[in-house]
Amino acid sequence: MTLAPLFAGRASRMRASEIRELLKLLDQPDIISFAGGIPDPAMFPHEAFRQAYADVLSGPGADAALQYQVSEGYLPLRRWLAAEMGRLGVPCDEGNIFITSGSQQALDYLGKLFVSPADTVLVTWPTYLGALQAFNAYEPHYERLTPAGGNMTPEAYRAAAAKAGGRAKFAYLVPDFANPTGETLSRAEREDVLDLAAGLDAAVIEDAAYQALRYDGEPVPSILALDCARSGGIEAARTIYCGSFSKILAPGLRVGWVCAARTVIEKLVLAKQASDLHSPSINQIVIHRVAETNYASQVAKARLHYGARRDRMLEALDATMPAEVAWSRPEGGMFVWMTLPPEIDTTELLARAVAEARVAFVPGHAFFADGSGRNALRLSFTLADDRAVGEGIPRLARLIAAG
Amino acid sequence: MTLAPLFAGRASRMRASEIRELLKLLDQPDIISFAGGIPDPAMFPHEAFRQAYADVLSGPGADAALQYQVSEGYLPLRRWLAAEMGRLGVPCDEGNIFITSGSQQALDYLGKLFVSPADTVLVTWPTYLGALQAFNAYEPHYERLTPAGGNMTPEAYRAAAAKAGGRAKFAYLVPDFANPTGETLSRAEREDVLDLAAGLDAAVIEDAAYQALRYDGEPVPSILALDCARSGGIEAARTIYCGSFSKILAPGLRVGWVCAARTVIEKLVLAKQASDLHSPSINQIVIHRVAETNYASQVAKARLHYGARRDRMLEALDATMPAEVAWSRPEGGMFVWMTLPPEIDTTELLARAVAEARVAFVPGHAFFADGSGRNALRLSFTLADDRAVGEGIPRLARLIAAG
Repeated sequence: MTLAPLFAGRASRMRASEIRELLKLLDQPDIISFAGGIPDPAMFPHEAFRQAYADVLSGPGADAALQYQVSEGYLPLRRWLAAEMGRLGVPCDEGNIFITSGSQQALDYLGKLFVSPADTVLVTWPTYLGALQAFNAYEPHYERLTPAGGNMTPEAYRAAAAKAGGRAKFAYLVPDFANPTGETLSRAEREDVLDLAAGLDAAVIEDAAYQALRYDGEPVPSILALDCARSGGIEAARTIYCGSFSKILAPGLRVGWVCAARTVIEKLVLAKQASDLHSPSINQIVIHRVAETNYASQVAKARLHYGARRDRMLEALDATMPAEVAWSRPEGGMFVWMTLPPEIDTTELLARAVAEARVAFVPGHAFFADGSGRNALRLSFTLADDRAVGEGIPRLARLIAAG
Repeated sequence: MTLAPLFAGRASRMRASEIRELLKLLDQPDIISFAGGIPDPAMFPHEAFRQAYADVLSGPGADAALQYQVSEGYLPLRRWLAAEMGRLGVPCDEGNIFITSGSQQALDYLGKLFVSPADTVLVTWPTYLGALQAFNAYEPHYERLTPAGGNMTPEAYRAAAAKAGGRAKFAYLVPDFANPTGETLSRAEREDVLDLAAGLDAAVIEDAAYQALRYDGEPVPSILALDCARSGGIEAARTIYCGSFSKILAPGLRVGWVCAARTVIEKLVLAKQASDLHSPSINQIVIHRVAETNYASQVAKARLHYGARRDRMLEALDATMPAEVAWSRPEGGMFVWMTLPPEIDTTELLARAVAEARVAFVPGHAFFADGSGRNALRLSFTLADDRAVGEGIPRLARLIAAG
């Protein structure tokens, strides 16, 4: 027998992403890949991790590190994060912090908590592919969020949501150095998003995965900080902040967090208890130790390292790309977003780029809820050293110029 | 504002379990708790874990241990598990193995994959509370599964499922030393479950969390092994096997696995990619190392240790409990299930047990999909040393005898 006929309707929305397929290309040593949005392992604080695992497993906390844990997460880590959020302008305590297995898990749980089938979720066009994948399981309708000016009013969104059969539950966005565009919302745009959400009586999910990775320009307050300031405090805030240690310490331990009103945290704890009990005890304890000693220095190191790589990539693009190609100039993060002439389909371009130029990227349409964006592509500069950029970007430019 | 009005309908099914509340009692040092079904930390292979983390983080695989991973899991661990499943009578390869963050996560993903609202799930009365919590998010209707004889035919189940508004998707059960009853299904009962599932054209979820913990009696083949034998191989099997390292190595790393037909594994990989990308890389690598060297010896140690604790608890129950109380005599696992006279409500008894006798257990009704079982309770013997049993069981017996 095959069990496929027993799958729920939502199973048909579960699809492999191009990113996954593309990551396989990294195994071919002669491919220069700008595809994967992953940190450079040279930046991992290897020695701090080695020491922390050894200390935890040799000390009086070894039993607790190997045993079951409470679903909300390791208390000292939650306290450390509450203090860190305080430094970001979000006064809160450990009751507002929930530990997740990477910030991806927060997106899954928030979809589960908020979205009934046919409810509306507002996302930018394009947006983080993993967010679309996480939300898809809960069968939302998507509407386009245009933080940088658009003509949709709360009333128009409300009508569209009702027509789709539900209501607008939240707006999801990556306000700093977005995946995939690299763009950062201004303070005024963030305030506009909060106004829109207030008009819709909806939540805001602020995906802050890249927030610490600023290479130049002035920091913009987080949406949650602006929300706390206008609403009088975190318990009255509609914004749910999702953070991650993956980009600053290491992704392989899978530790992220949510900062939000207790009403939301308490439901997320129940969702986690039902879905995986808790994130690994030992990893939370180790992340706490390494964060206490190394977080600030890791942020500083990452800014220098990735900032230089961004500069190198922008220089190479400036020097080699044909005039009809445009790209973003991100102030931080991991990505440059490139727009090609409308007649170019970047999925077809990728096949040729791999076959002829031995260069890889992610085609843009994967990031659009409606599958548009066929003439865009995403380049990641985090793994791209001088040689990769110096060889790979000119090869890509020649391929595009050849048409 | 409060975000609660925005929660999806399923959020109302997210509830804190009594177990969670009861675990808090463990923090009170003068309470003797038979509540938590958790392994004894004295059994953890501390030194093997210390060595494995140190070796991995000092060796050439350190970068990979801290980096993102493929969603299906670490290949050498999947190969090791495929060989282990072969020893259990399930010929398969790594394509049939999927790594989860504990077997709890498998239950969440299987609920997500199979259950549309109002579909029917068959569970025993009582069953594992965490399974009910995991499935509840997908809004199933529950019907009672009676593997040890019952008068429901496939036609009757089919009619009940249709009346509830969906169809029977799977039967879930813990065939070895069940949580909470401690009972083990005979080979004939397992074959009957497969017959029923075939008649219903439904899947079978075999939760094998305790399978290795047999203290006496003869092993019974796993349902998946029986299914492979009758259906001709794992790709034609309807059974989905969920395993866990939590009871044999340690729960704090959160590593479990699913063994099933590729049709199912491929969908689970997509579910995981959308929900937390992958289980922590470093923990999978460490579990593989420790399993290679210590799995067999850990199983042997656990059998001796927990077997002796089960014996001690059964002796104490035999010596002290009033005649109107009955209990199971498990051949393995972690639990003894006790049935009191029908007029006793064990939730009320627990309040008095904690207040007057300083003893804790889990009230039975938490394990029933319909909230029945109010005169039953679950005792765990894994953390109960001679003193705890020697003092705690007589105290509980006196409380019950006093009525």
